[in-house]
Amino acid sequence: MFREKIKVLDCTIRDGGLVNDHDFDLRFVREVYKAVSAAGIDYMEIGYKNSKRLFDPKKFGKWKFCDDDDIKRAIEGVESKTKISVMVDVDRVDLEDIKTKKQSPVDMVRVATYVKDVDKAIHLENYFSDKGYETCVNIMAISKTLENELTECLCQLEKESHAKVIYLVDSFGSLYQETTEFLIKKAKHIIKTKEIGIHAHNNQQLAFGNTIEAIIHDANFVDATIYGLGRAAGNCPTELVLGFLKNPKFDIRPILDVISKEFIPLREKIEWGYIIPYAITGILDEHPRVAMALRSSDKKENYREFYESLVGEDDGE
Amino acid sequence: MFREKIKVLDCTIRDGGLVNDHDFDLRFVREVYKAVSAAGIDYMEIGYKNSKRLFDPKKFGKWKFCDDDDIKRAIEGVESKTKISVMVDVDRVDLEDIKTKKQSPVDMVRVATYVKDVDKAIHLENYFSDKGYETCVNIMAISKTLENELTECLCQLEKESHAKVIYLVDSFGSLYQETTEFLIKKAKHIIKTKEIGIHAHNNQQLAFGNTIEAIIHDANFVDATIYGLGRAAGNCPTELVLGFLKNPKFDIRPILDVISKEFIPLREKIEWGYIIPYAITGILDEHPRVAMALRSSDKKENYREFYESLVGEDDGE
Repeated sequence: MFREKIKVLDCTIRDGGLVNDHDFDLRFVREVYKAVSAAGIDYMEIGYKNSKRLFDPKKFGKWKFCDDDDIKRAIEGVESKTKISVMVDVDRVDLEDIKTKKQSPVDMVRVATYVKDVDKAIHLENYFSDKGYETCVNIMAISKTLENELTECLCQLEKESHAKVIYLVDSFGSLYQETTEFLIKKAKHIIKTKEIGIHAHNNQQLAFGNTIEAIIHDANFVDATIYGLGRAAGNCPTELVLGFLKNPKFDIRPILDVISKEFIPLREKIEWGYIIPYAITGILDEHPRVAMALRSSDKKENYREFYESLVGEDDGE
Repeated sequence: MFREKIKVLDCTIRDGGLVNDHDFDLRFVREVYKAVSAAGIDYMEIGYKNSKRLFDPKKFGKWKFCDDDDIKRAIEGVESKTKISVMVDVDRVDLEDIKTKKQSPVDMVRVATYVKDVDKAIHLENYFSDKGYETCVNIMAISKTLENELTECLCQLEKESHAKVIYLVDSFGSLYQETTEFLIKKAKHIIKTKEIGIHAHNNQQLAFGNTIEAIIHDANFVDATIYGLGRAAGNCPTELVLGFLKNPKFDIRPILDVISKEFIPLREKIEWGYIIPYAITGILDEHPRVAMALRSSDKKENYREFYESLVGEDDGE
């Protein structure tokens, strides 16, 4: 009794890149691509298309820029039906570098935006759409968005954008099911000609639960990452999503395999997942950057002090 | 806008005892009791009351037996409004050893049972109830229970038991929100004179999400453990529950403190939490014991092989 319309987008390399400055070696990216392909996952997001004028290529790995040639090297020779996605941020991409879809290994481009930048996002997204790419708009920091502004943003997207999917992004991992339900229903009410997607963070161990909640209320695009790899608390785990979805085209086994072989060793080197400072920023609906700074300091396990510093930070007036 | 009826039971020491044969030292148990008390948590479950004729006290820690004198030593001198709970299993307790409530530091006794043993559980629970204790019945392995048998069990509990709370226990961590909703609603429909409780396991990172789901549908007793400590994947984390509940009597800070000081070092010594073999048994709705055996073997990271061994185990006929 699966819903065929549900598509899984694995963004392990893209969101995981926020942990290590996008510095995955080609071998690792190919192993992930092989696993995701063998698992029957619909899309794999491989990184950001960022301007090399804004960011120095010497300071970041190649998946912060996603040159078409690098993508080709990551996927060549692998049997796959998985489409390739890249993400772009408003104001950070050089449009003159973008080739048409026919000349590129990229299938889909997702534009990440805050509500306030939706005009820029639509402009950008339609640019890529005109070049022949599938497109999405990902509305970030959804938990901090005032309802009237979200309504206007969604109405504008429905009217002016060619995006295939509008994603709601719980950037801070602060949503509970009831608000997830409210937001997805609201989006479904306004967005009639596109699909709704969910991208959840796992600060409060609710990324998977909120993804299921979104699916219950008819979101058909779900983001996930292998073993939850992603910035700070990480994301909704791909392996759990595949365990939940009943579409026989999915096969969890290649994902289990790549976790054993690649992600368990990786977790020894870089940190992500359920860690109390990230839970605290999730509970308080704050950006995880303060918690990430704490984790790099010698006070990394001083949870109470960290919590008290956040709740006592300012008086809000 | 909190619901005053919601009570939190911290079962860190009881469920955590399943990881280390109940062998927490007195100092650790006192630190947990202090934290739970300072956090304003309603109940703390400290262990099992098991027969020393069935289990050799030399082979297990004292919290497998919970002698009244040991409990007294754990709690004496600590300012607290937290009530003390112990768990008993059907067929494993020596009733002749049980004192009356007035002679004991124990406030509540919870009887753990499978549906098939509900007659024994009611007999046991009413015995404790007659001695003056608050009582609960915890229905284990709820995900494996046939609906007609669950209906009969709940009707019988409503009619014959003096329990204050009937708990649904997702022993295998296999429930998703929709089934949690279905089961809680079903229990609420039959159980009119007692509260409904939820005890969730975290195999699929859904313990907290399912606990919220149960609260949404009017379960008023929720089990949790500090930092999720508990057998295999562990439980719903106390810190997340306190972050979610709005009752001003709760204070998350003592829990954050005790995690820093006691649980981070403990996690270096014993293993629990989101670990792929436990996710697999959760997905497959199986008891975690096979995964626990795997984790003690040299194949502990061979996830795919483990998965394939379980799905290929027998043909079910």
